[in-house]
Amino acid sequence: MNNSRFIVVEGLEGAGKTCAIKQVITTLRSYGITDVVVTREPGGTPLAEKLRKIIIDSAEDDVITEYTELLLLYAARVQLVESVIKPALKRGYWVVSDRHDLSSQAYQGGGRGINKKLLKTIRDAVLGNFYPDFTIYLDLPPTKSRDRVLMRGSKIDRIEAESLLFFQRTRARYQELVADNPSIVTIDAKQPLEQCSAAIHDHIVQWLSSNSQ
Amino acid sequence: MNNSRFIVVEGLEGAGKTCAIKQVITTLRSYGITDVVVTREPGGTPLAEKLRKIIIDSAEDDVITEYTELLLLYAARVQLVESVIKPALKRGYWVVSDRHDLSSQAYQGGGRGINKKLLKTIRDAVLGNFYPDFTIYLDLPPTKSRDRVLMRGSKIDRIEAESLLFFQRTRARYQELVADNPSIVTIDAKQPLEQCSAAIHDHIVQWLSSNSQ
Repeated sequence: MNNSRFIVVEGLEGAGKTCAIKQVITTLRSYGITDVVVTREPGGTPLAEKLRKIIIDSAEDDVITEYTELLLLYAARVQLVESVIKPALKRGYWVVSDRHDLSSQAYQGGGRGINKKLLKTIRDAVLGNFYPDFTIYLDLPPTKSRDRVLMRGSKIDRIEAESLLFFQRTRARYQELVADNPSIVTIDAKQPLEQCSAAIHDHIVQWLSSNSQ
Repeated sequence: MNNSRFIVVEGLEGAGKTCAIKQVITTLRSYGITDVVVTREPGGTPLAEKLRKIIIDSAEDDVITEYTELLLLYAARVQLVESVIKPALKRGYWVVSDRHDLSSQAYQGGGRGINKKLLKTIRDAVLGNFYPDFTIYLDLPPTKSRDRVLMRGSKIDRIEAESLLFFQRTRARYQELVADNPSIVTIDAKQPLEQCSAAIHDHIVQWLSSNSQ
């Protein structure tokens, strides 16, 4: 019997997704789950990483339209799901991804204001009944997100350069989507890192035990 | 009053699309229509040309999935339509394109066998009520197409490397779509070039005169 699961970590930039993924892996390992593939969106395959570059680079090209961005994100997602995630799950590996479809719903749906129905139509058309088993949403106010991004000191990409209002709409949509979905847990990402990690550990433990019953 | 129109030339590789576009421009010019933008799909903008390269290059990357290919084609199409074609038409330019949406319906729908309804769903979602005013379909048997592609002597790309069966399905779908649509004319592309050009000229003249009534 194949027991593998697909776990996603979501949230605004600077919310602590990288640390959260480390904690997920540590907790899984403490349960004897060591075959774990870690990936990210957009990206995670050579082709999808090329698309990532086109999506997030500050444009030397023509200005990318909202629908172009959306279709590129789904192109990268389908490529990752079909060529990495599904094959890994099939071989019994667990998969942990930095972002998945919820990001498009929050950023493109909330941030950019693309119609919810259109998003669902495209998602359903190309991903069908493929969904994460468990999602950890790291909730952070956009002002805090901006502070943390600036603290990193690295070059700001095309998405990070969006307005505070864009990220407020994105966060609001995240919160709305999370409220609707019992397979998503929310972590207060304003907390110190240790408390975040402890909360993530507890949620994973609880989910694993409810799954094994 | 804005009188501009969007004309598309379609057909298998080697059908003579480049020559056909030259004839369209010559005929338009003879009617005093000199403001013409010529473009191609996939491509036609710096960003869309990057996508073209990813779509048609023989993969050094992971093998591109059918849905990834489809979404990339639509991403490139939306980018071209929104950033080049619509603005040009708005400024009064005529636009002539080497391929447009019919190619996806024929190659991805016919060749790859992607569900028609799914294609329509994605098209309608991102292009809405944007359609070509006039389409010239150059009909050529796949064996002839292959001969002409090989005669060129240039490197075969990822699409050109498809099987004869793939192109038979693609042509069959082209023929089916053309039969359903009065804004598409079919030219027998087996004919000598001069006869093709004369037929294209006649069709454009007829269309222009029926339009001006």
